[in-house]
Amino acid sequence: MKGILVIADGLGGRPTDVDGRTCLEAAETPVLDELARLGALGLVDPIGPGVRPGSDTAHLSLLGYDPYAVYTGRGVFECLGIGMVVREGDVCFRANFASVEARGSELVVTDRRAGRIESGQHELAEALNAIDLESVPGVSFEFRASTQHRGALLLRGDGLSRHVTENDPHATGKPASRFAAEVDHDDEAARRTAAVLNEFVERAYETLRDHPVNLRRIEDGKPSANFVLARGAADCPHIESIESLYGVRGAVIAGGALYRGVALACGMVPIDVAGATGGLDTDLRAKAAATLVALESFDYVFTHIKGTDNAGHDQDAAAKTTFIERIDREFFGPLIEGLDASVTHLAFTGDHTTPIDFGDHTHEPVPVLFFGPNVARDETAAFGEREAGRGGLGRWSGRVLPMLLGYNNWSPKFGS
Amino acid sequence: MKGILVIADGLGGRPTDVDGRTCLEAAETPVLDELARLGALGLVDPIGPGVRPGSDTAHLSLLGYDPYAVYTGRGVFECLGIGMVVREGDVCFRANFASVEARGSELVVTDRRAGRIESGQHELAEALNAIDLESVPGVSFEFRASTQHRGALLLRGDGLSRHVTENDPHATGKPASRFAAEVDHDDEAARRTAAVLNEFVERAYETLRDHPVNLRRIEDGKPSANFVLARGAADCPHIESIESLYGVRGAVIAGGALYRGVALACGMVPIDVAGATGGLDTDLRAKAAATLVALESFDYVFTHIKGTDNAGHDQDAAAKTTFIERIDREFFGPLIEGLDASVTHLAFTGDHTTPIDFGDHTHEPVPVLFFGPNVARDETAAFGEREAGRGGLGRWSGRVLPMLLGYNNWSPKFGS
Repeated sequence: MKGILVIADGLGGRPTDVDGRTCLEAAETPVLDELARLGALGLVDPIGPGVRPGSDTAHLSLLGYDPYAVYTGRGVFECLGIGMVVREGDVCFRANFASVEARGSELVVTDRRAGRIESGQHELAEALNAIDLESVPGVSFEFRASTQHRGALLLRGDGLSRHVTENDPHATGKPASRFAAEVDHDDEAARRTAAVLNEFVERAYETLRDHPVNLRRIEDGKPSANFVLARGAADCPHIESIESLYGVRGAVIAGGALYRGVALACGMVPIDVAGATGGLDTDLRAKAAATLVALESFDYVFTHIKGTDNAGHDQDAAAKTTFIERIDREFFGPLIEGLDASVTHLAFTGDHTTPIDFGDHTHEPVPVLFFGPNVARDETAAFGEREAGRGGLGRWSGRVLPMLLGYNNWSPKFGS
Repeated sequence: MKGILVIADGLGGRPTDVDGRTCLEAAETPVLDELARLGALGLVDPIGPGVRPGSDTAHLSLLGYDPYAVYTGRGVFECLGIGMVVREGDVCFRANFASVEARGSELVVTDRRAGRIESGQHELAEALNAIDLESVPGVSFEFRASTQHRGALLLRGDGLSRHVTENDPHATGKPASRFAAEVDHDDEAARRTAAVLNEFVERAYETLRDHPVNLRRIEDGKPSANFVLARGAADCPHIESIESLYGVRGAVIAGGALYRGVALACGMVPIDVAGATGGLDTDLRAKAAATLVALESFDYVFTHIKGTDNAGHDQDAAAKTTFIERIDREFFGPLIEGLDASVTHLAFTGDHTTPIDFGDHTHEPVPVLFFGPNVARDETAAFGEREAGRGGLGRWSGRVLPMLLGYNNWSPKFGS
């Protein structure tokens, strides 16, 4: 047997999206509608009823973990997702290049994303990694750049803590904040970690401001990528791998670092797909093809599609609807054509709702589709929120991957 | 945006109520039926599947809290609900006047409610509060009378414990019990608390038996309110306020002290409504009007309606059905007419089932209705248990208020 889990980020919508329908309901999705007819639908609260999910916590929950027990923060998944090795005791951050201007003794943030820098960021990262921190002996760090302004920062050493505040003021025109121990965790380790971070960002500014990449950017009239903002402090979560829990091996296909990072933390093997961007321009046919190829070597594949959420955050109903139609035609079309439906179970859902009018995650349950030989057909014949509300599977919280693996008879028995 | 949560106590019923239908199904409820047509229904297990709820625990759960984590007993909500100030370390009781007769060395309970005393109870309370307890130095108390025989008792001092038994024998003709430390918590604090309580009720009997109010009652042939029964020991629960969790301010409108007390413990502001009695004779139009007025100053309002439960406990199907029809006509009619449906979300449910044949709470899930601009219409067109069972929202446990606040985009995100 083989298993395929597909999560379209922020898939869910509200009746305010498109004239009383959600984007998903408004989209023409003949392939998904046929899968609904052949399979069964339900509603899943990604984390729990009335809980507004983050993407990281929602994925952990859908993959079968209790995020209230295992989640420590986003940074660790960002580090893992861009290929960094995270060890017990490390403290990880989501970090990005930003632009600041010195005004008096303060560094005022003028662009939180350094003009979404498109090139030179790996050279800047190399310069950062040459910094020798002095204030706190025994602590090393690694900064890694990923796409555009994005990256991740990892601190390693004894006696560090994730309980530190961030330096991102979350607004332009404001000075970068100083790192500090969280009020509720003001201990030696947190103060030590904050001191390392404050020294790192000061030295980063000294290193970056006159870097040739930035001198060129200034010449070209672009914002200088002269500062680092770090947030989402996290340490290594204690997550038992899917393989140790179910005895099966899985692969992850995801353009976005966060989703790849979550899957890596659960023990999946990452597969790179050329053209998988984590955006609306992603190559969905390439992802479908890669999913089918990965199924030859792995028991199950988790494929993440991010664009739906991007369109939701951009409050662009037409873009979200069109992208869902593309998912149907360019991803599920070839995927279904290429798989052996007699030995494969498929689950498709979202990690949360991102309605157009709000432009951010909301609490509603999302539709979920199961398809395969062991799935009892229900009476639904279209894929959407309301059709899922009358689906034969009812409503529950999280754990979509365990259910998928269960259809493949791979679940461990609890009890005897 | 504005939010309205309405809970009708003991709303749910069984097919044994009225010729195969529940009281709610048998009632003519055109307003609620129209709201069902415009909104969506589901079934909510107030606490969890198969859990038979108390009113206090069910309300905590529906308001978004885990009653297994925060509930310490009923007494604290009774104290809060009648306006007492409860501090960390206080031990609270639901307390009421009763009638006893001295037989030998025992006080035998002859009426557990002192003939539902209608007047003079506040004078009696004043006399009680003048008692000077001597057995345990450093412990003070406050007794407050509310409606009829009902009241609450609060102990304050160092080293008290809620782990004490009660003195209510729960039957007439039996002697009042002595307070004692619970077998599982037989420590210094519990023994100390029991000693204070035993002294208090002995001194209360001495104080009340010859009180002018009681001498008059005896002359009039009424049971003497000469004793105090106390139960539901509880200490201050650790409940994070709705305001601190969601950043919004709420008001509570409830005739019953318990419900007002639960809402106060969650940080809501109480609003008095003349004619709101917590009984079948309550002024439902006044409660609807007060709800609309409160919405002008608060982000959301929780309105509790108690009469449904009273009729259920009285095993009076006609009274319950008629009262539900009154709720529809006299509460929801003017409420819906007065609210701005484009910016308001409404949730209506019960806190448990109180079927006629059993006359007490049962475990079944209760119907829940959501209505407002972000709620996706389902196919239901009437409000009732079975219609809710085919509603588009499915079935879940508790957390109706978080879902309502979520539709208003007020939820904090868990994760990132």
